[in-house]
Amino acid sequence: MNYKINLLLTTFLMADFFCLAQSNDMVIEDFEPSYINQPGHEYPMVNSQGRVRTKIFAPDAKYVKLDIGGVKYDMVKDEEGMWTGVSDPQDIGFHYYQLNIDGASVPDPGAMLFFGACRWGSGIEIPSNDQVIFAVKNVPHGHVHEIRFPSKSSQKTLRAFVYTPPGYEKEISKRYPVLYLQHGYCENETSWPNQGHANFIMDNLIAEGKAKPFIVVMAYGMTNEIEFGRLRDFDILPFQSVLVNDLIPYIDSNFRTLANQENRAMAGLSMGGFETRLISLNRTDLFSYLGLFSGGVYRPGDFKEYETLKLVFISCGSKENPEWVKKAVNELKNAGYHAVSYISDGTAHEFHTWRRSLYQFAQLLFK
Amino acid sequence: MNYKINLLLTTFLMADFFCLAQSNDMVIEDFEPSYINQPGHEYPMVNSQGRVRTKIFAPDAKYVKLDIGGVKYDMVKDEEGMWTGVSDPQDIGFHYYQLNIDGASVPDPGAMLFFGACRWGSGIEIPSNDQVIFAVKNVPHGHVHEIRFPSKSSQKTLRAFVYTPPGYEKEISKRYPVLYLQHGYCENETSWPNQGHANFIMDNLIAEGKAKPFIVVMAYGMTNEIEFGRLRDFDILPFQSVLVNDLIPYIDSNFRTLANQENRAMAGLSMGGFETRLISLNRTDLFSYLGLFSGGVYRPGDFKEYETLKLVFISCGSKENPEWVKKAVNELKNAGYHAVSYISDGTAHEFHTWRRSLYQFAQLLFK
Repeated sequence: MNYKINLLLTTFLMADFFCLAQSNDMVIEDFEPSYINQPGHEYPMVNSQGRVRTKIFAPDAKYVKLDIGGVKYDMVKDEEGMWTGVSDPQDIGFHYYQLNIDGASVPDPGAMLFFGACRWGSGIEIPSNDQVIFAVKNVPHGHVHEIRFPSKSSQKTLRAFVYTPPGYEKEISKRYPVLYLQHGYCENETSWPNQGHANFIMDNLIAEGKAKPFIVVMAYGMTNEIEFGRLRDFDILPFQSVLVNDLIPYIDSNFRTLANQENRAMAGLSMGGFETRLISLNRTDLFSYLGLFSGGVYRPGDFKEYETLKLVFISCGSKENPEWVKKAVNELKNAGYHAVSYISDGTAHEFHTWRRSLYQFAQLLFK
Repeated sequence: MNYKINLLLTTFLMADFFCLAQSNDMVIEDFEPSYINQPGHEYPMVNSQGRVRTKIFAPDAKYVKLDIGGVKYDMVKDEEGMWTGVSDPQDIGFHYYQLNIDGASVPDPGAMLFFGACRWGSGIEIPSNDQVIFAVKNVPHGHVHEIRFPSKSSQKTLRAFVYTPPGYEKEISKRYPVLYLQHGYCENETSWPNQGHANFIMDNLIAEGKAKPFIVVMAYGMTNEIEFGRLRDFDILPFQSVLVNDLIPYIDSNFRTLANQENRAMAGLSMGGFETRLISLNRTDLFSYLGLFSGGVYRPGDFKEYETLKLVFISCGSKENPEWVKKAVNELKNAGYHAVSYISDGTAHEFHTWRRSLYQFAQLLFK
């Protein structure tokens, strides 16, 4: 009897163990093509667990690996020379990835390309419940202008992207506030409009009456010119000169802006937040609204001589350092500042955290 | 003695042979990084012969090939696992290419990416004496607007790019003529602004006073929806509906256009010329200026009921069918039409032919 009970117990425990093992390894076969695939490509695919499946024809390769964020997954070859691989579940939102064919790291020919990690490379989107915030809906759409502005300080013609809200081209006597919105380390001026979908987030917020129509300027923050790990040595002055002496005057003279501090905001993600913090504190006469998305915090002491400040917004993903962000915002509130924290549920130091941050921040601006 | 002469002769002949072989195979070592490389990448490189040299780290690969326009060049591995390959001399201008690693066709991680051949893939530029026509100069620059317009006929929100000339944002009472400019088969709405540099060609022409300032609209011509080799079955009506019923009204209501036939032009390259020809003859009430760039010809009989026609421009590369183009234009002239031919020297069915064609055509418009 004892033996029987023991056997029963053991059987239950083993069943439990196998169940656990199964739920970790199990791959649910509900894969669908990623919505950011190249035209006509079925792969890469994503399933409901957030797993990524890639496929590539490489008949003479010894090995092929799927590499997402530095984690490499072995792919398997079939008799026709087609290699297939599946990743572990990924966080919702956007991820950079690549394939490795016999030691060569290359883009996946099936996926669309995005600038991040200092290069144009493959991107994959893990669907989320709230991706509707940047969906291309049947609402009026603003324009994203690719502009080239003369930069005296850098002796170059530089590129930036400028979102003008729906109606901008028609209501030719109206003037608009401006948000300067910076990308992160090893990204560029294409990152916010491409993988960030800043334009669609704005279109949707404006259509629902949740945000005031304003202009968004997305410029290159010169972050790629330094080595990773040497961020402490980063000199903000070259970018500050481009922004303050070249770009803001160009925008104010070529677009119908409300060209004053009350109607100007700056925000940035990651290293773009770092830049926002430095420039806003060097030049307390320029911006009234500030946002740091996974990009550090402000302390009450920072703002002693910043009387024109209207809003400080600090955010990060729940998988980053939310307590640090909340604590900083509480300190700012206790010191009498209008400070708002936002924690993106279930995301890390990735673009879905920042899309959501923009979605929240934009609703608080210029009101 | 006879023997000596024979030996001497043989030596001369052999030297001659080696010289010939050398001049065909000789690679001049004046390679420089392609100016459309990804940031921080030295390779691919181009030399004064128009040869392309690529390099990629693939330590475990059996073979790597450089593939330009379907011609494959074997690359050679060094002891560190770095593969290097050099192509034959290429025509001046822009070419799509890819690498082949153990049978996998992939983009070159060193090169920028362009949409052509129905996919985002690597591009290389062979420098030409006249690339100054699309250089980014210190002149006033227009804006390239990325727009999303509602298309009733296709039940979708579609993307297009709209070039507005320098001054457009400031001179808010001025109205402008419009050129509708189409890409080729397996390209899309990004091809003219990216590899075509339509915006810089216009900026430079306007700065020199060679072209009137006008708007350029670059939309997707729906050419990728048919199989290659089945162009005869191509139905123009879906794209014609998008252009005529959706896009032109959107442009005329959202931009400050001169919204009449007298101030409207259409042109296209390759299959975009085919589309221009079909739509212009279906709807003789829309355009006054027409351009076919490597995209077929018009015959005098085509225009019997087209009294509002002001200009027909037909072009191609000297390595295409220039006699056919010249003959067609002579027939049009003899029949009393204002027809102009242009032959691009030293180029084939490639983008440099079409950049030059736009450069010539734009100078003739709306005058």
